[in-house]
Amino acid sequence: MYVTLPGIYAQAEAIDFKIQYYRKLMDSVTAIAHPNIAFIKYWGNREDEFRIPSNGSISMNLSSLETRTSISLDAGLPADQITINGEIAKERDAERIRNFLEIIRRQSGISTYARLSTSNNFPTGSGIASSASGFAALALAGSKAYGLSLNEPALSRLARKGSGSACRSIPAGFVEWLPGKDDTDSFAVSLASPDHWQLVDLVAIVNAGQKKISSTEGHHLASTSPLQSARVMDTDRRLTICREAIMERDLNLLAVIVEQDCLMMHAVMMTSSPALMYWLPATLEVIQAVVHIRSEGIPAFYTIDAGANVHVLTTIEFVPDIEVKLRAIASVSTVLISPAGGPARLVTSDLKF
Amino acid sequence: MYVTLPGIYAQAEAIDFKIQYYRKLMDSVTAIAHPNIAFIKYWGNREDEFRIPSNGSISMNLSSLETRTSISLDAGLPADQITINGEIAKERDAERIRNFLEIIRRQSGISTYARLSTSNNFPTGSGIASSASGFAALALAGSKAYGLSLNEPALSRLARKGSGSACRSIPAGFVEWLPGKDDTDSFAVSLASPDHWQLVDLVAIVNAGQKKISSTEGHHLASTSPLQSARVMDTDRRLTICREAIMERDLNLLAVIVEQDCLMMHAVMMTSSPALMYWLPATLEVIQAVVHIRSEGIPAFYTIDAGANVHVLTTIEFVPDIEVKLRAIASVSTVLISPAGGPARLVTSDLKF
Repeated sequence: MYVTLPGIYAQAEAIDFKIQYYRKLMDSVTAIAHPNIAFIKYWGNREDEFRIPSNGSISMNLSSLETRTSISLDAGLPADQITINGEIAKERDAERIRNFLEIIRRQSGISTYARLSTSNNFPTGSGIASSASGFAALALAGSKAYGLSLNEPALSRLARKGSGSACRSIPAGFVEWLPGKDDTDSFAVSLASPDHWQLVDLVAIVNAGQKKISSTEGHHLASTSPLQSARVMDTDRRLTICREAIMERDLNLLAVIVEQDCLMMHAVMMTSSPALMYWLPATLEVIQAVVHIRSEGIPAFYTIDAGANVHVLTTIEFVPDIEVKLRAIASVSTVLISPAGGPARLVTSDLKF
Repeated sequence: MYVTLPGIYAQAEAIDFKIQYYRKLMDSVTAIAHPNIAFIKYWGNREDEFRIPSNGSISMNLSSLETRTSISLDAGLPADQITINGEIAKERDAERIRNFLEIIRRQSGISTYARLSTSNNFPTGSGIASSASGFAALALAGSKAYGLSLNEPALSRLARKGSGSACRSIPAGFVEWLPGKDDTDSFAVSLASPDHWQLVDLVAIVNAGQKKISSTEGHHLASTSPLQSARVMDTDRRLTICREAIMERDLNLLAVIVEQDCLMMHAVMMTSSPALMYWLPATLEVIQAVVHIRSEGIPAFYTIDAGANVHVLTTIEFVPDIEVKLRAIASVSTVLISPAGGPARLVTSDLKF
């Protein structure tokens, strides 16, 4: 076999193209973040623009579920190019991400647009907080890509501006969001690492569809409920009990306070104007199952975010038993299982050449 | 045919027995009262012994459902003899009724025991307030049998001591319970007669079983919810809107406030310690159906007492349509239908001789 001169040029061009392609990949920054399940819920803002919450909250990162976000700057782009789960982002989502990138651009002084690709390994918008892991991963990957070097509180503050609960997906394991009084002191800190307690979340998925009302819209309605201020005023009590239950690994104590807190948030939702009723009949079926499971002596409790799915929490030894029981419920389409997860983190490229 | 002397004596005795029997029937007093469905709910007492409520409430009597109670004094009885729905009363129910009869005996100064028979034309203890109609009928029949002549407020106050919401089953039609500050001024009054508005209650029965936790026990738990005081403080707003909606026959206005009030009560129930979750999956199915019915332009709203059944209210012209839709829900076992009902009233004996 011999090679013609035009053939050699073609090969050289192909090699050059590959080098440029890999260089672009090298420039791209990838971060992973986990969604979190709140034990003490965030519902309602004291200040909307910076998402300063009406009350503090506590959550656990979910290690099995993750958002992976890659971003690279490209001076040739006329606008940000955004892909979500392999498809070009819908305008509503794209706008929210562009606004967030603008915050990073202002902070970094670099105005270059970015190519951004993000994907979740769990159903989007189903009540599992994809916006939390999404904006946590984006805060980390984005700040890095734009040359910012932020410490954990600063990253948490940045993530909060994309989605309030995203600030809790920055630190590791069991996390508390200190509500603060303004943008400077409203961020999340780790209360305990993921290996502190082998607590496991079994997410009974009863509805993998998109929510009708986004959490962002819901937060605006919180103040219309006649019950919200009482819920907010009672927060310190719930936070104190929850913190103690986590530190002492006291599942029974955690069960009581987490279920009450969940029902207090849904009470506010249901009594706001207009009323937000996120529950489905299947939601109550799972609640009943958990109450029954507990009556059999198996430690477990439930909590529900702004959606219909039910998070069932237990310690690792009871997971197989509870999984079987949850899967036996006809209206439960699947069960996602996750122990406590680590912090938002950068992914080092595997490419070598 | 001829009659022996002993035969004549026997006949005479039989006639005498019959006269005594009818005389006893004549002495017996029968009253009818309807249960009521609360638009603004009663939940929690300011004072337990006399059932002075934490907040005022508004309800509608249900004409198709009734409790019928007959009572007669019998000096030969060593204790009260109580029959409920044709069977000797269970001790728990009997004790509550005996305690109530004691109040009447103290008030009348007559210590004679009574023979009492009461029956409902609807399932007992299923979330339809059988205690409301029960103690309203008993207050009226009992006070009459013991020779008391009470006016409507006095009767309402008496009924309240048996079961709080029973005071609302004394006046006619659409009724408000003025909470008062003590036993002297806590009673119900009629806001409008039954023919003021052709509002109809379709009760979707999803569970005709007995409640696990009685309302009396539930009222004691109200104060353990961090949301109860906010609910109570907001009551005047809800009462004002509800009163106006009834007076103006404004179904849309009534719908918003009644659903919110219902959800506020269940919010308090769910967040009390221990938590009271009265809802079943089927409860949410009916709620969803009502929301769907309304989205089709048919005016309707729901409310739920301390139970799993859902009361669906609409005006008379939409009843057939909504009945069909509710019966189509598999988990709805039956639908009871009732327009607004009259006051508690005495039944004149039909016996003539």
